[in-house]
Amino acid sequence: MAGHIQIVMDQAALNTFLAAEFPQVAPDLYVDSVSDSELVLRLRVKEMHLRPGGTVSGPTMFGLADVAIYLTILSRIGPVALAVTTNASIDFMRKPEAGRDLLASCRLLKLGKQLAVGDALIRSEGRPDPVARCSMTYAIPPHRESRSGAIPG
Amino acid sequence: MAGHIQIVMDQAALNTFLAAEFPQVAPDLYVDSVSDSELVLRLRVKEMHLRPGGTVSGPTMFGLADVAIYLTILSRIGPVALAVTTNASIDFMRKPEAGRDLLASCRLLKLGKQLAVGDALIRSEGRPDPVARCSMTYAIPPHRESRSGAIPG
Amino acid sequence: MAGHIQIVMDQAALNTFLAAEFPQVAPDLYVDSVSDSELVLRLRVKEMHLRPGGTVSGPTMFGLADVAIYLTILSRIGPVALAVTTNASIDFMRKPEAGRDLLASCRLLKLGKQLAVGDALIRSEGRPDPVARCSMTYAIPPHRESRSGAIPG
Amino acid sequence: MAGHIQIVMDQAALNTFLAAEFPQVAPDLYVDSVSDSELVLRLRVKEMHLRPGGTVSGPTMFGLADVAIYLTILSRIGPVALAVTTNASIDFMRKPEAGRDLLASCRLLKLGKQLAVGDALIRSEGRPDPVARCSMTYAIPPHRESRSGAIPG
Repeated sequence: MAGHIQIVMDQAALNTFLAAEFPQVAPDLYVDSVSDSELVLRLRVKEMHLRPGGTVSGPTMFGLADVAIYLTILSRIGPVALAVTTNASIDFMRKPEAGRDLLASCRLLKLGKQLAVGDALIRSEGRPDPVARCSMTYAIPPHRESRSGAIPG
Repeated sequence: MAGHIQIVMDQAALNTFLAAEFPQVAPDLYVDSVSDSELVLRLRVKEMHLRPGGTVSGPTMFGLADVAIYLTILSRIGPVALAVTTNASIDFMRKPEAGRDLLASCRLLKLGKQLAVGDALIRSEGRPDPVARCSMTYAIPPHRESRSGAIPG
Repeated sequence: MAGHIQIVMDQAALNTFLAAEFPQVAPDLYVDSVSDSELVLRLRVKEMHLRPGGTVSGPTMFGLADVAIYLTILSRIGPVALAVTTNASIDFMRKPEAGRDLLASCRLLKLGKQLAVGDALIRSEGRPDPVARCSMTYAIPPHRESRSGAIPG
Repeated sequence: MAGHIQIVMDQAALNTFLAAEFPQVAPDLYVDSVSDSELVLRLRVKEMHLRPGGTVSGPTMFGLADVAIYLTILSRIGPVALAVTTNASIDFMRKPEAGRDLLASCRLLKLGKQLAVGDALIRSEGRPDPVARCSMTYAIPPHRESRSGAIPG
């Protein structure tokens, strides 16, 4: 991993950031924990996240993984940078269990000057088998002090 | 492609299906055209699809590609089957232009007994360069007459 | 994970299988360990695996991950089935270190009736940071007693 | 696409570059054609590319797509840059036909300052249905005049 890079935003700082920067999705999301090796982001599953049959929708799980890995990167570089998702690969493996929150457990695999890579396993709370697996790449803008980001390139 | 497989649902049938089966997202989506070689799905971009800065959110584009490729499969096998997304890979390449609809142009690459594969390019209407590229795999349940689907496996 | 499924092929059985079924690549590969939670496959890096500059080539790393995840599946279902790779997603994150073997550490994430999913981190021996990350899906033929496989679908 | 960017290396220049820079694989590969919209790279399938059963191996198809998309990028930016593959996603969809060359048809989807993205369909010569689909991302080093590349980051 890239676990040797120190955490610069703790759980409280990340939840505050989430509320300020992602007001649309923040009420459903909560950083359960963050450490050098793992960040866990919780999705409070609500009616609006479900597809017919009670399954959490694909875009909802995609969004959960995206925010989770994004926060994992920010936990190491701070809130000033605006990383942009450039690639995502996701495997949907099982049906989430009805009535349970989803937990995304993320690892930071690379934190470079231009690119960062992380992956996540999503599980229904209290269940060992993963519902989905996701890996994402983020482009980091050249000047980290800038916040006004656009897709680089 | 798998272009030699005849269309069994036309544009009108697909839009009717969309309204009946995906009531949450149907108001924003519209099948512009469908043929042996391509299906075009339109997203009427609204405030709710945007991230700060005016970019269409990643989950919105993921959902657009997912529905578009799903409908491309159904256009060949009819509305009775319930295919489930098992894998998705997406590249976000440019910032969508503000104030323009998004158009997803889909190809069906494989339609097997167990698995179907399609891909899509997403563009801002009237612009040649793609905003995103996406490929997805769907598992097709063993008995196509059944509609009550779950992730196979 | 799918770690609750018992191992039916141990390290010795897997290495014997490798030599019998993959004679072209077997001299370079060795199963270092296998358990309920992880399989480690070693690539003895040789001149033929290198690109100019001393980097291990992309196809070599792809092949290492493919065999490693394939063996991880077989360690649970035995040598009789012929699973076929249907999807792979790989991130190349760092340059492997010259003069060191590569180790692929694999997890089995799903073992269904039709599909199996696993992922792997590849590292230079003795180094903590991963060189590459890979996830792959395999289609499992309907009748596991059969060995003569073809791409299903 | 990014088809508005002019070709700066034609078919002859690309084949010369291939022979000079990839001597290990060049005897098996040949650029059939290149234009603003598509590059076609041929793999002369030989015994060494096959797996038991006569299928072309996964790493061979991965390598074909990798070189094909790489050359598609170089056809627009010239031979001076050293782009590095950072991500690949590949779907294996059909068994290649025995005794036929493989043709990879590539499109350039994005050519940015930091990242380039392309995709490819691989077919057995003379057959319409694709054997595999692949998309890849390449990191372009900051100073294109430099040739001594390493994974950026």
